[in-house]
Amino acid sequence: MTFADRLDNAITLKGSPALVGLDPFLERIPPEFPAARDPNASRSEQAAAMGDFLCAVIDLIADRVAAVKPQAAFFEILGAEGVAQWERVIAHAHDADLLVIGDVKRGDIGSTAGAYATAYLTGSAQCDRRTLCDAVTVNPLLGHDSITPFLEACREADAGIYILVRTSNPGGDQFQTKGDPTLSERIADAVVAWGEELMGDCGLSSVGAVVGATHPAELKSLRKRMPHTPLLLPGYGAQGAGAEDVAPGFLPGGRGVLVNSSRGILYPQRDDQTPWRDATSKALDQMRAALAAAGAT
Amino acid sequence: MTFADRLDNAITLKGSPALVGLDPFLERIPPEFPAARDPNASRSEQAAAMGDFLCAVIDLIADRVAAVKPQAAFFEILGAEGVAQWERVIAHAHDADLLVIGDVKRGDIGSTAGAYATAYLTGSAQCDRRTLCDAVTVNPLLGHDSITPFLEACREADAGIYILVRTSNPGGDQFQTKGDPTLSERIADAVVAWGEELMGDCGLSSVGAVVGATHPAELKSLRKRMPHTPLLLPGYGAQGAGAEDVAPGFLPGGRGVLVNSSRGILYPQRDDQTPWRDATSKALDQMRAALAAAGAT
Repeated sequence: MTFADRLDNAITLKGSPALVGLDPFLERIPPEFPAARDPNASRSEQAAAMGDFLCAVIDLIADRVAAVKPQAAFFEILGAEGVAQWERVIAHAHDADLLVIGDVKRGDIGSTAGAYATAYLTGSAQCDRRTLCDAVTVNPLLGHDSITPFLEACREADAGIYILVRTSNPGGDQFQTKGDPTLSERIADAVVAWGEELMGDCGLSSVGAVVGATHPAELKSLRKRMPHTPLLLPGYGAQGAGAEDVAPGFLPGGRGVLVNSSRGILYPQRDDQTPWRDATSKALDQMRAALAAAGAT
Repeated sequence: MTFADRLDNAITLKGSPALVGLDPFLERIPPEFPAARDPNASRSEQAAAMGDFLCAVIDLIADRVAAVKPQAAFFEILGAEGVAQWERVIAHAHDADLLVIGDVKRGDIGSTAGAYATAYLTGSAQCDRRTLCDAVTVNPLLGHDSITPFLEACREADAGIYILVRTSNPGGDQFQTKGDPTLSERIADAVVAWGEELMGDCGLSSVGAVVGATHPAELKSLRKRMPHTPLLLPGYGAQGAGAEDVAPGFLPGGRGVLVNSSRGILYPQRDDQTPWRDATSKALDQMRAALAAAGAT
């Protein structure tokens, strides 16, 4: 089954397009995992504590989300030991029947892009396939030959990609909104073309787009330009966007989106009496309710 | 000493701007390292063979190049074991008094960019500092707040960055040459501004730019736009550019550039009688001679 169809089914099954980003800032991991913040812990102990926390988060949320989005940077910061936890956390998410969107934002010339596509989507001969991602985020700056190996990997492994079209951060304006058509609009048109050969039965492609929820007007016009593209909408919660800001990305029936929150779910504000599980669980329930009220699936 | 000054000194000392890219395609590693291509080898054995080859390359070339440029994708393809070799190879290059430019092409929102800058330039508290890079390549699509953490890391660790301005691959045209000014020109102007606070005594900044040697006319005009920016010029050799194509990037005295060749040095054409070391050594000498003839330092 194509990634597009697997994702659409999973969102329907879980009843929400909420996506939880796994961004393990070491200094914000709950004190229940003390080695994560212990300056005397070894890198391997720090990494294991980070992995313990993320696996516990996965167990807590697996019945309420379709997918998780681990952010590679926070694993790479702990080197090889961090990457070992990346693999552990992804396998754990798959064991919990979650889809995994690897937030790697890779982009390179064709031969190198092929190596990244193998690393994260199709796998080298000796890898444990449970450690591969179902989809990854991709940076399109290098153009078509940097994307082609990922499209081939999507076909080979029924995987997906989310191409950066308009990012949620303050600096996103600097290049992405310049020109006429804007760079984001040019990329959006390319996303549609790249996705045509990878349509699922659900009417959506396995080639998706990242569009920041912090720019609702642009989201609306980019959605019009990409009517069959699954959107990954970052910026909800800690970055300032609310449920009403993501609604312009919904297709009829509230379909076709994943709305990401990372810090808002992993590190919600809480008092000393509230266990982290309760705070995280409540934050996720509030996000699911807000998205449902805004018309999401 | 700033990265700009350390690099300028090293190029003068070694007498060449030749840069060797460490792109370990497993299937092209010489048969003297059999586990690299053995389908029955474990991932750990494959990774170790890859590391053995790259360390041998470093020993062979260290007296003739200022720096090496490992490409992250080919390490990540072997997961945590591959990343362990990434760290080993970088430490080995530093032990051989080489500068290391990590070709990671990372780019993400500010908080995540900060994690990448820590991972590759400044290091987490527990890391072995010999495994850090002197500079990394950075993708600027996300704009200023995706670059700021790298600039801070450059100041903190006397490190450098090379920002993608115009890439060497066929698809580079798709977005980079569009608009007026073009996207590449906009990025070049930003590179100049970002680099102003990081000038070395040599008159060059520690904020560099990647400009493909496969586009000599654009290289010439981009060099005019970025007169104090160290350039990293990929595309020499296997991608088709020759010494005359990189010359428009030289500053007076043939300074201010690194010219990269990866596959042309690591996997030169050779007959069965020629040991890989002889072929690689000869390919590097030819590249150095060609660059010198074209007016490089």
